[in-house]
Amino acid sequence: MVELVTVGDTSLRLSPRGNERLETATDVRMHAAGTESNVAVAASRFGTDVVWLSKLPDTPLGRRVVSELHEHGIETQVGWSDEGRQGLSFYEPPCEPREAVRIHDRKRAAAETMSPGDLDMDLIQNASSVFVAGSTLALSETAAETGAAVLRAGASGDGVSALELDYRPELWSPAKARETLTGVFESVDVLFGSEDDVRTVLDRTGQARELAPTIAAEWDLQMVVLTRSEHGALVYHDGVIHDRDAIETDTVDDTGQHDAFIGAFLAILLDGGEPDTALSTAVATASLSRTIPGPLATVDQAEVDRLVDSIEQSGF
Amino acid sequence: MVELVTVGDTSLRLSPRGNERLETATDVRMHAAGTESNVAVAASRFGTDVVWLSKLPDTPLGRRVVSELHEHGIETQVGWSDEGRQGLSFYEPPCEPREAVRIHDRKRAAAETMSPGDLDMDLIQNASSVFVAGSTLALSETAAETGAAVLRAGASGDGVSALELDYRPELWSPAKARETLTGVFESVDVLFGSEDDVRTVLDRTGQARELAPTIAAEWDLQMVVLTRSEHGALVYHDGVIHDRDAIETDTVDDTGQHDAFIGAFLAILLDGGEPDTALSTAVATASLSRTIPGPLATVDQAEVDRLVDSIEQSGF
Amino acid sequence: MVELVTVGDTSLRLSPRGNERLETATDVRMHAAGTESNVAVAASRFGTDVVWLSKLPDTPLGRRVVSELHEHGIETQVGWSDEGRQGLSFYEPPCEPREAVRIHDRKRAAAETMSPGDLDMDLIQNASSVFVAGSTLALSETAAETGAAVLRAGASGDGVSALELDYRPELWSPAKARETLTGVFESVDVLFGSEDDVRTVLDRTGQARELAPTIAAEWDLQMVVLTRSEHGALVYHDGVIHDRDAIETDTVDDTGQHDAFIGAFLAILLDGGEPDTALSTAVATASLSRTIPGPLATVDQAEVDRLVDSIEQSGF
Amino acid sequence: MVELVTVGDTSLRLSPRGNERLETATDVRMHAAGTESNVAVAASRFGTDVVWLSKLPDTPLGRRVVSELHEHGIETQVGWSDEGRQGLSFYEPPCEPREAVRIHDRKRAAAETMSPGDLDMDLIQNASSVFVAGSTLALSETAAETGAAVLRAGASGDGVSALELDYRPELWSPAKARETLTGVFESVDVLFGSEDDVRTVLDRTGQARELAPTIAAEWDLQMVVLTRSEHGALVYHDGVIHDRDAIETDTVDDTGQHDAFIGAFLAILLDGGEPDTALSTAVATASLSRTIPGPLATVDQAEVDRLVDSIEQSGF
Amino acid sequence: MVELVTVGDTSLRLSPRGNERLETATDVRMHAAGTESNVAVAASRFGTDVVWLSKLPDTPLGRRVVSELHEHGIETQVGWSDEGRQGLSFYEPPCEPREAVRIHDRKRAAAETMSPGDLDMDLIQNASSVFVAGSTLALSETAAETGAAVLRAGASGDGVSALELDYRPELWSPAKARETLTGVFESVDVLFGSEDDVRTVLDRTGQARELAPTIAAEWDLQMVVLTRSEHGALVYHDGVIHDRDAIETDTVDDTGQHDAFIGAFLAILLDGGEPDTALSTAVATASLSRTIPGPLATVDQAEVDRLVDSIEQSGF
Amino acid sequence: MVELVTVGDTSLRLSPRGNERLETATDVRMHAAGTESNVAVAASRFGTDVVWLSKLPDTPLGRRVVSELHEHGIETQVGWSDEGRQGLSFYEPPCEPREAVRIHDRKRAAAETMSPGDLDMDLIQNASSVFVAGSTLALSETAAETGAAVLRAGASGDGVSALELDYRPELWSPAKARETLTGVFESVDVLFGSEDDVRTVLDRTGQARELAPTIAAEWDLQMVVLTRSEHGALVYHDGVIHDRDAIETDTVDDTGQHDAFIGAFLAILLDGGEPDTALSTAVATASLSRTIPGPLATVDQAEVDRLVDSIEQSGF
Repeated sequence: MVELVTVGDTSLRLSPRGNERLETATDVRMHAAGTESNVAVAASRFGTDVVWLSKLPDTPLGRRVVSELHEHGIETQVGWSDEGRQGLSFYEPPCEPREAVRIHDRKRAAAETMSPGDLDMDLIQNASSVFVAGSTLALSETAAETGAAVLRAGASGDGVSALELDYRPELWSPAKARETLTGVFESVDVLFGSEDDVRTVLDRTGQARELAPTIAAEWDLQMVVLTRSEHGALVYHDGVIHDRDAIETDTVDDTGQHDAFIGAFLAILLDGGEPDTALSTAVATASLSRTIPGPLATVDQAEVDRLVDSIEQSGF
Repeated sequence: MVELVTVGDTSLRLSPRGNERLETATDVRMHAAGTESNVAVAASRFGTDVVWLSKLPDTPLGRRVVSELHEHGIETQVGWSDEGRQGLSFYEPPCEPREAVRIHDRKRAAAETMSPGDLDMDLIQNASSVFVAGSTLALSETAAETGAAVLRAGASGDGVSALELDYRPELWSPAKARETLTGVFESVDVLFGSEDDVRTVLDRTGQARELAPTIAAEWDLQMVVLTRSEHGALVYHDGVIHDRDAIETDTVDDTGQHDAFIGAFLAILLDGGEPDTALSTAVATASLSRTIPGPLATVDQAEVDRLVDSIEQSGF
Repeated sequence: MVELVTVGDTSLRLSPRGNERLETATDVRMHAAGTESNVAVAASRFGTDVVWLSKLPDTPLGRRVVSELHEHGIETQVGWSDEGRQGLSFYEPPCEPREAVRIHDRKRAAAETMSPGDLDMDLIQNASSVFVAGSTLALSETAAETGAAVLRAGASGDGVSALELDYRPELWSPAKARETLTGVFESVDVLFGSEDDVRTVLDRTGQARELAPTIAAEWDLQMVVLTRSEHGALVYHDGVIHDRDAIETDTVDDTGQHDAFIGAFLAILLDGGEPDTALSTAVATASLSRTIPGPLATVDQAEVDRLVDSIEQSGF
Repeated sequence: MVELVTVGDTSLRLSPRGNERLETATDVRMHAAGTESNVAVAASRFGTDVVWLSKLPDTPLGRRVVSELHEHGIETQVGWSDEGRQGLSFYEPPCEPREAVRIHDRKRAAAETMSPGDLDMDLIQNASSVFVAGSTLALSETAAETGAAVLRAGASGDGVSALELDYRPELWSPAKARETLTGVFESVDVLFGSEDDVRTVLDRTGQARELAPTIAAEWDLQMVVLTRSEHGALVYHDGVIHDRDAIETDTVDDTGQHDAFIGAFLAILLDGGEPDTALSTAVATASLSRTIPGPLATVDQAEVDRLVDSIEQSGF
Repeated sequence: MVELVTVGDTSLRLSPRGNERLETATDVRMHAAGTESNVAVAASRFGTDVVWLSKLPDTPLGRRVVSELHEHGIETQVGWSDEGRQGLSFYEPPCEPREAVRIHDRKRAAAETMSPGDLDMDLIQNASSVFVAGSTLALSETAAETGAAVLRAGASGDGVSALELDYRPELWSPAKARETLTGVFESVDVLFGSEDDVRTVLDRTGQARELAPTIAAEWDLQMVVLTRSEHGALVYHDGVIHDRDAIETDTVDDTGQHDAFIGAFLAILLDGGEPDTALSTAVATASLSRTIPGPLATVDQAEVDRLVDSIEQSGF
Repeated sequence: MVELVTVGDTSLRLSPRGNERLETATDVRMHAAGTESNVAVAASRFGTDVVWLSKLPDTPLGRRVVSELHEHGIETQVGWSDEGRQGLSFYEPPCEPREAVRIHDRKRAAAETMSPGDLDMDLIQNASSVFVAGSTLALSETAAETGAAVLRAGASGDGVSALELDYRPELWSPAKARETLTGVFESVDVLFGSEDDVRTVLDRTGQARELAPTIAAEWDLQMVVLTRSEHGALVYHDGVIHDRDAIETDTVDDTGQHDAFIGAFLAILLDGGEPDTALSTAVATASLSRTIPGPLATVDQAEVDRLVDSIEQSGF
């Protein structure tokens, strides 16, 4: 039985090297970048048995995505499609005070037409847990229905069903996101989100410590995990809030850090760990992922454990 | 007064380096690649005063295209659009016996909506010559109408109006190409095409030496210039055929060689050269362009002249 | 049921780029290079369900090997060891008339101690076929016994058991190779070897066309497949010899071409193809693999088929 | 009518990558680097219509300089010379506490013989503004006379004439610089300089806030703009001092930041902006230019505006 | 007469670039890395006449080590061996909070069998000083005896004999190191060590200021020089302690900084400088070495002097 | 006693990689390139004890030249000068039919003022042989006198004095070269030259086989060695002509091949070999040098010997 199934779209991200600007760059580096595949890779680093499911064009570009995910150790089940293109994005990393530049080029990606029929629903139903990101539900009506079906299948039986808000303004409006996402909350056990996404999508104000219990109560969620960028993260579960400060890093690439956080959190949870422990591991994994080029968190469980230990000794 | 105006769409081409395959490549090199801009760059290397006109998305990617064209010395007039994407292509160069791999990703490019209103038609009308490629007319109905308008404007007055067949099977069928392209032949003075494209688009059989006069006669074309890849090229004009063998090269990148040929041919013609001389220069330029990475022909007029001389001495 | 199991040691190969010499190089590129994993990757490109088994050190270097194999699409089962090092080799590619330079640094590699107990023998027993290379049996007494056990397991039941001579002078003498390898021939159905290796290891003279039937007869082998570098390859089966000429290529990296040949041959055979067809595909795959950097044959079945077709039309 | 004309010499700068030292580097990156062309590029990023005039050797190196400037969007008018070489410099970037290493190799550069006859003086006379740097006047007697003529032409009519002190100890002594530069102050409307250069060249002591009014008064300058490296910048105009703090950055390449400052300042001024606004934009542009490799400020007007806004909100 | 002889093993260090992880890296950079050769290179930058002696395999890899040392200006005397391999190490640089990863692969290195007979003992005896690191004595019994012989030869006559503790847990235990190293202390004039190594190897507690005099007294050492990483360094000599704070740097590569420290210290001492002066120079050299890629300190004496001056003015 | 002393100027050569053109290149690779240092490196590969003498600017660029020569194993004696610059050249490699582009930038190089007083004339006098190239005598009057003095010193006693014509049209006219070079022929024992240079400098016609004896007779030269590019090479000595065909190669970089030829020839001669043997070795070394990037011939004596053997067996 698979421990974690994640379902979603993964783009090829193209970024210039060495702080060059897209406008004058001659060379770009390619990375597979997708919330659900990032989460899958991070979880697999902790020994979790993961499968990522998706729909990709049957071209060298689609296969390029899968090659990189296999290189990072996860299994995949892809519906190879003759329709739809490979989603792309162009990304110019930030350099203080210069902001990151992102050009989204995902329209007509093969995953827009991913239906439950493209997926091995038995595998999903029997998995210990499933994870989907809001950005996948934002791709198209079909994708939204598929995401909902995946969460329902995950929540059936003993499985854990996890969703991240993952709000992307280029894909939909806050109102549309709210309608779609809250519409699937009844199938969700664990909700992940950044403080900002919670405010935007759920139209709230207030701090994470107040938001988590309120949201959990309103939608009857088992666990709510909120990240607060440089202010750390917290988990609300069983009436208790656990929180952690962020860890300072020499940041090389901060993309994918939230996904690294989620993957590590789920891995510990699936391994029987307490939310409190999962949170420590998640924060440490996110910080290490910022020291690694590309959105995939090629961390080593031993180094995460050492970091957690060293920080707990100094009062983490 | 501008000597040559070329109008068309230019993509960003991404290719892995050093014979790597797209499926496992980590780095790709970007090049601006478009028939009409390639022709413009080649012509400008001979001192021709050229302007390339197009419509591009107002993003760093659109500006990236223009930066590279400026770097290669041509002027541009671009309608910057908030709609439409930057056309892309992925290209894996051939390596005998491995064939080239091309992934076209140009759908919904900004240039699909390029109308005469997006262009400075006065500039076009007053130019000594205009050039458009069939691949631009293949983009959309709008683009086809725009291409036709450009050729009409070019053919009005003393101007020379030039068209290349430039057939692309991913954009349209032979029948559709035939209908659209022969529909604009009345505005064309100089027709360029590869022997293969002539056979496919005009539905003919036979060798270039027979095709050229027939086609010129049927559509009342002033000049017909046919390339025959490793078999050289010929021009038919005023009832006479001039031909040249191809030149052997250590090929580094053969993309854009036909465009280099056309740019050089037009440059010599516009400078008052005879078709025969233009053909020698065009063949030499195409051969040098194969020794230069990327589709743009950064040749030097002096080296082209030396090559023409050295070959004519040895019976070119 | 797995279709093909290959068992053996894989080194990390380090080579300078762009014809630089090791003595003055500053940068080297790393590749996973091992006969059995190369064969596995090539077979998987034709849709064969393959697993590669080995023993590697539990270090980032050992994991580096597995990452690259996963990237190329095969499954692996590795006994992670705290003893033994990662086998290495340094490789300076040839450049006519300069010969290749190879520095073998595989002593004390973890795989030297690979015993049947380190392997999932059930998986092997149930596989449709197994493949081992002579170079693996050359590593150590233990490895030789393990190789023999794998071939025996493969030959039991309906399975096909395949061996390549793969003679490496740095690992053992011809006499020692002969003794060990002929000692396992009774468990071998298909024997692969280069003409040179056959002569050296089996102490024969004569041409491939004579060698194949003699060897098959002497050791009662079902099929003997011999490669003759620039002179092509042949297969002897059921009293008939089929042969193919080699295909001319612009060679980028000729390492791994024999393994690509074997992988393709086995894939077609396992898919029910005739030895004759398998040979065509194998020769085409080997030629394409020479156009791809690194020892792994990232070919595409469609392009192999096209090449086979185009060559058969021209009298291959 | 051109809005800004800048006239001066531009070198090719060669620098090792990745903190390597020149003494052991194998690869160097080339950049066109010249005060006046840097200023031109920065101004053009704000939509200013700029032309850079110079004299360069008629070689691939001279054309290399122009290609890079065209790539960055400015127009050029170059007197191509068969005499004189391409000025070069070798540059090893600083790395705290290691200082930058600069090897100047500009002697006998073609621009040393640039006379008014080499320039389109009509264009200069009709431009809205002209800019020259002191370092250009330092090249040779001829260059000094040409610089003076350009400033005179710029100051005639309604034009704005701008000079930067740009003191280079390798080119002349402070005394010689003082004599030459103050000799042209009567044709100068806007004077730019670093606090250090003002002290060295004009032989003053004191802080920028005192220096600016004194200098403006003594030489009857309309505007004096002083930069104080990590202490920000100020402008003195009409009896009023406006100043700005410097903005903290993750510095990637601090060369050309003063020129980015000047280009942005002039662009806003030419667009009708107040000195105060020009200063904000200039400081923001300089800070962004430090995050971009190479001396050319490939900024985007929108991101400069966002930075100005964000800083003014926080009390810039 | 040679001023400084250093004797020891030097590995080839392979490290991925740009913060990549070994597990997924495709390219690694090679550097010659050995305590004694690092010390030799640093000393030679101050004009010291240095020879490094060792035993290496007679392969392109052994010659690769020597090429890089020659490139950095030192002379070498190498016993070229047909036995033993080239010692290697794989190194993943740290990135806060990610720790460095080191994979040692030095077993069976040629230098393990380096005996006095492999060395020009006359050269050593006549040198003004010799230097050996504890890590060399840790390689093997033979190497330990050779190290002892070198120190004895160095200490005979007027020579200065210097040893660094250089404790490497992968090579021996603290107890074994203690036994071997204190066993040669009678031939040592100057002892170098990090505070940590002193505590581990000599089994002490306490701070550097207390450790230095105690150790000097116990083993009758002329000079004891201790480094305290971010807390600077001190020298104890003739009953007096001199100390220096560390200098803050933008660290690019911190490997080899201790060796740079030692090389600079010995160079100044050999040139007749006081321990106090040697310490200033050593601290400055170590800080500059952190700004240079690779373990070799390609510093320039003039820049070291400037840094010492600038720091002493600010109360270093 | 040194076996070979070579004296001359060495430039830094900058060339774009991968067939890029200088006009659009962003990165260039640096190589030390000088006839006499190239010869020295080639000779040292055969175990010859060589010293190269020169005068260079005391800058990181001058030291860069020496670092690379040391890396390749030769000793150097350099007069470090505060006057004069580092000679440079820009080089765009050829790509059939595109010719190489060379931009010489050596004017005012420090070596122009190299006088005998800058050199250790005792070392030269006592060396077994000296080598100077005509291009060094072409640098300046001073350099011509110094070259003459070196050859005289070399020819005194038992030493062998060798000169290559090495005609460079950018440095002097054929007439001037003839006057200067024939003026030193009385101090020359072995004359090297390409057939073309002999014709140009000595104003002859005819083939190498006729030229060699005539020249040897006219100027009483002991040995005349002529290279004929793709037609091989010959040596005339003691009334006998030995010749060799050129060897076909996959050429990576053909610069420095003549110098590799000379270095190998002198090495064998100094080692007591016959002219005939020296010629075989020289031709093989030149062919291998064409497979190695850069002008320095990093060959291995064993591989040269193998190549000589393999070719002599096939009737070389």
